[in-house]
Amino acid sequence: MNDRPATASLRSVDDYRATIAALLAPLAERPVEEVPVPAVLGRTLAVDIAAPIELPVFRNSAMDGYAVRAADVAVTPVTLPVHGVVAAGKPGATPLPDGSAIKVMTGAPIPPGADCVVPVEDVRASDGVITVERGRARGDFVREPGTDVRAGDPVAFAGTLLAPRHIAALAAVGLPTVPVLARVRAIVITTGDELLPAGSPLEPGQIYDSNGIAIAAALTADGVDVVSIEHSSDDPAEFARVLASAVARADVVFTSGGVSKGDFEVVKDVLAPMGGVFGPVAVQPGGPQGYTVVDGVPVLSFPGNPVSTTVSYAVFARSVLRDFAGLPPVEERDVALLTPVRSPNGKRQFLRGVVKPEGVEVVSGPGSHLIASMAWADVLVDVPAEVTALPVGATVRILTL
Amino acid sequence: MNDRPATASLRSVDDYRATIAALLAPLAERPVEEVPVPAVLGRTLAVDIAAPIELPVFRNSAMDGYAVRAADVAVTPVTLPVHGVVAAGKPGATPLPDGSAIKVMTGAPIPPGADCVVPVEDVRASDGVITVERGRARGDFVREPGTDVRAGDPVAFAGTLLAPRHIAALAAVGLPTVPVLARVRAIVITTGDELLPAGSPLEPGQIYDSNGIAIAAALTADGVDVVSIEHSSDDPAEFARVLASAVARADVVFTSGGVSKGDFEVVKDVLAPMGGVFGPVAVQPGGPQGYTVVDGVPVLSFPGNPVSTTVSYAVFARSVLRDFAGLPPVEERDVALLTPVRSPNGKRQFLRGVVKPEGVEVVSGPGSHLIASMAWADVLVDVPAEVTALPVGATVRILTL
Repeated sequence: MNDRPATASLRSVDDYRATIAALLAPLAERPVEEVPVPAVLGRTLAVDIAAPIELPVFRNSAMDGYAVRAADVAVTPVTLPVHGVVAAGKPGATPLPDGSAIKVMTGAPIPPGADCVVPVEDVRASDGVITVERGRARGDFVREPGTDVRAGDPVAFAGTLLAPRHIAALAAVGLPTVPVLARVRAIVITTGDELLPAGSPLEPGQIYDSNGIAIAAALTADGVDVVSIEHSSDDPAEFARVLASAVARADVVFTSGGVSKGDFEVVKDVLAPMGGVFGPVAVQPGGPQGYTVVDGVPVLSFPGNPVSTTVSYAVFARSVLRDFAGLPPVEERDVALLTPVRSPNGKRQFLRGVVKPEGVEVVSGPGSHLIASMAWADVLVDVPAEVTALPVGATVRILTL
Repeated sequence: MNDRPATASLRSVDDYRATIAALLAPLAERPVEEVPVPAVLGRTLAVDIAAPIELPVFRNSAMDGYAVRAADVAVTPVTLPVHGVVAAGKPGATPLPDGSAIKVMTGAPIPPGADCVVPVEDVRASDGVITVERGRARGDFVREPGTDVRAGDPVAFAGTLLAPRHIAALAAVGLPTVPVLARVRAIVITTGDELLPAGSPLEPGQIYDSNGIAIAAALTADGVDVVSIEHSSDDPAEFARVLASAVARADVVFTSGGVSKGDFEVVKDVLAPMGGVFGPVAVQPGGPQGYTVVDGVPVLSFPGNPVSTTVSYAVFARSVLRDFAGLPPVEERDVALLTPVRSPNGKRQFLRGVVKPEGVEVVSGPGSHLIASMAWADVLVDVPAEVTALPVGATVRILTL
């Protein structure tokens, strides 16, 4: 097509990144949902959580042993009658008679009147009496209520990415559910008549439909809830239908393919009239980019080459989405280049690299179709737009994949 | 109980760790299961995967442009008639007539006879002819079959922890499923009459049943499939029933509570006669430990205090299970102590700590009931058994939680 009504001029990577970050910014306001505590691993706590109860809930024994008065065991050995036993889970309301002992299990309530526990190791027991071999001070092996947490004290703060240790504490104070931020819901739409589902034999001109699976995996790893992976042919009516369904079900939609300068650019053809902005970004791979807001839902349109799609996601969307999910930022650092690099002037290039102890080795050229090679790469090597060649030993910025 | 038939003598942490590692070692032989490629994120590939096809599958265009013979555009400008168009997904079998061009979209097959592509940017098109402004060499913007991967070449190796980039490659070669190692299946059983489910009001002597939720969260984070969280009262018949069901459904079973020296130690009472080994380990918290093999299934029995349970899991089981899941080892390193520490002689102590830039601050005492405080800790501070005091500035080993 020769008329492209909504084509922006060539943009820099940083400029386009900022544009996409602004487009996605409304997603930072996540709805809150109540989720059962056993299922909140990796979720972000929405509010400060105060302990609804104190811990320990009641005065209890830190040992299997005998609850006594410290004064009664001040001089040892001393023999005391045993007035029953309190198991964990029993009320333990019977007061301790003077000059006697009540057997207590770890975690069991301390009987009223007792002020310490003599561990079972320090006692000889026989026939209703014990001989205490070693005295104890007031408070020994007694856990006082509220010494772990007081009712109303904070257990975890809003914004906490919930790890097992937080879950342990939330469960210990008896919370069945906690409010967490809803995950961002995404749908990925791949486009193109040439795409075939995995497992079917390829006809001439066909390739496998892999971009949806690839972006979905990346989204999942970045804390996004992938609602579905869709496919549309190059028929604009079909794409419009799939798109309408997607924006009704997701907070953000990703498309791959159909954004370039060809005759059959279904994504651009449908979205540009809806206000979509399509045009080249000064980046390789992944030059042709587009974005649209459809019914309030941001739609990010990546080119269809597998490496272009994957790199586009990593460069333009990943950091923002990880931030929303409360995940740590993508690691970026400077290392030495182990492979000489040539790069087109005016385009920022993201090469695939493997990190070694001594630096980074580039494992593939600029080709946007080298998806199998990409499996070997653990980083992207960020070559600035104005750089046309870098020798071995040059310092380059790498982004962890 | 006064007779404890299968009580081992006091063991060191390292010795018990080795015992548990040996007990769990058979789980390293994971069964293999076929999992759809879109669902293999974080799974461990069971076999080397060779590409069933080559990529690119066919000679295709790297640009939207015109497939020509390089010889026909050696001198420019040159005007050529356009013989149709090949979209991506079309067979593109029509040969290119001499001295002409066929329009091709990115990814579309290169027509037989063409040997390069002139990008659409370098062409003026009008009414069935194009004027090429800039010549191209043979091979320009032509992606040759097999230049990404050849059929039979490795795409990913056995043992790979599958990341989005691997999934992208597996999808690109059209694999619907891949064989991955089955996750270890675990069941957690909490025991104790005193334990109440979250959300119910506590009666005197009761506490919330949190250890199952806590261990399950830790197991999930360590790549283990938690089949269920169970609870048993202190009734041996009930525990035996819950245990029998658990070993039938899981590869490993964890129990909490009922392993100490009290009168009602349901776990020890049921498991010791089945060959279980119970006894103290020279560690704090988490001294009373036990292990049993029931119907070939290892059963690890931790003490019931929440912090003891959590620390027991972290110290004795975590590393082995992460290894089976293909996850990176737990980070251990030496840092400066920011809080003076006292420690019982002869017991290795794992204190809860918070890492700061200048070292580690201890956030809780040795108390095994301080589960709420544990939420603030991001590491365990490993204090050797023979150490009784450490000053500020001492070097200590920390384990990331």
